[in-house]
Amino acid sequence: MANDLPLNKETILDAAEQVLRRYGPDKTSVVDVAKVLQVSHGTLYRHFASKASLREAVTERWLQRSIADPLETIASQTEGSSAERLHLWLETLITSKRTYAADDSEMFAMYASVTLDAVEMITTHIGRLIHQIAQIIENGIKSKEFKSGQPEILAKAIFFATSRFHHPAHAYEWIAKKTDEEFDSVWNLILSGLATSKS
Amino acid sequence: MANDLPLNKETILDAAEQVLRRYGPDKTSVVDVAKVLQVSHGTLYRHFASKASLREAVTERWLQRSIADPLETIASQTEGSSAERLHLWLETLITSKRTYAADDSEMFAMYASVTLDAVEMITTHIGRLIHQIAQIIENGIKSKEFKSGQPEILAKAIFFATSRFHHPAHAYEWIAKKTDEEFDSVWNLILSGLATSKS
Repeated sequence: MANDLPLNKETILDAAEQVLRRYGPDKTSVVDVAKVLQVSHGTLYRHFASKASLREAVTERWLQRSIADPLETIASQTEGSSAERLHLWLETLITSKRTYAADDSEMFAMYASVTLDAVEMITTHIGRLIHQIAQIIENGIKSKEFKSGQPEILAKAIFFATSRFHHPAHAYEWIAKKTDEEFDSVWNLILSGLATSKS
Repeated sequence: MANDLPLNKETILDAAEQVLRRYGPDKTSVVDVAKVLQVSHGTLYRHFASKASLREAVTERWLQRSIADPLETIASQTEGSSAERLHLWLETLITSKRTYAADDSEMFAMYASVTLDAVEMITTHIGRLIHQIAQIIENGIKSKEFKSGQPEILAKAIFFATSRFHHPAHAYEWIAKKTDEEFDSVWNLILSGLATSKS
């Protein structure tokens, strides 16, 4: 990469992601990224004070692009059934996590490890996802498809009740067929708690 | 320990647990346990072929005594409200895990690590717990406190919907006050899915 490119955050994150993917999080240092960008490591340290903050920033961008943004597209729709939209939203979250764990294992491993340390960044990410669920529930309550309740609290409950299917610490347990069945049973329980009685 | 004691499984497990607690799982070998029991390591290898199988057996006994047996006492009761019993059962499971993570950290760490490998033993343990939940639900359905449904499937759903609060991979997230609030919201969602409508 030529050093006449503007050294903005995105440029640094692009280079960092490339180096992290190539050498792995344990072997990548701020100095390696500086080399790829052809800048002094002093210049780079002004943007990222440590290896840990570099990893955190790369993971944060990855979570936003790969998980939060596609889900936002689902959550912001208002046409059709809210139950179906909530199911699609959860299924998309779960399938994405499972796909990345298998097909983008370097980034997924880094994300799983960053999750243990970068509490604030992960809490913000989870807050965004819970807010998306709350949007869907709010619509469902308005249309009388769901019982009345507090969307943000219900959304939090749904997010935590499905942790087994999307939290990276469970990745080793995600065996496709078994996990699908288990999610179906949890989904039915959730829906039974949300939906207005049809009897 | 004198070598005139009968070398049954319990005696070996007592010695193994003692050694594992003292030196930690990584530093404990079958030979160390043989020394405490004053038997040849050949004798011990006839009972436990590897370090891994020794750890697994000690963890299995610990899970049964510390988790499954006390919960069985709750699940087998039939008097009073099924919802209250289910809540007490879940709360007891969650509180035990949290207490052991803090106060019996050597055994808890070993259990967390064995969980990743001893799939069959853990599946059996979880099967027992799910069966206990199913007993409570069956009673609740009989007394019309819960909607009709398949107790074993509902029990599995409830067990997995509360993973965030009892699966050892989440132990690092168990900050008492926050976890209590999160569990309350999940519990309300579960109960809302189970209970017959009062309206």
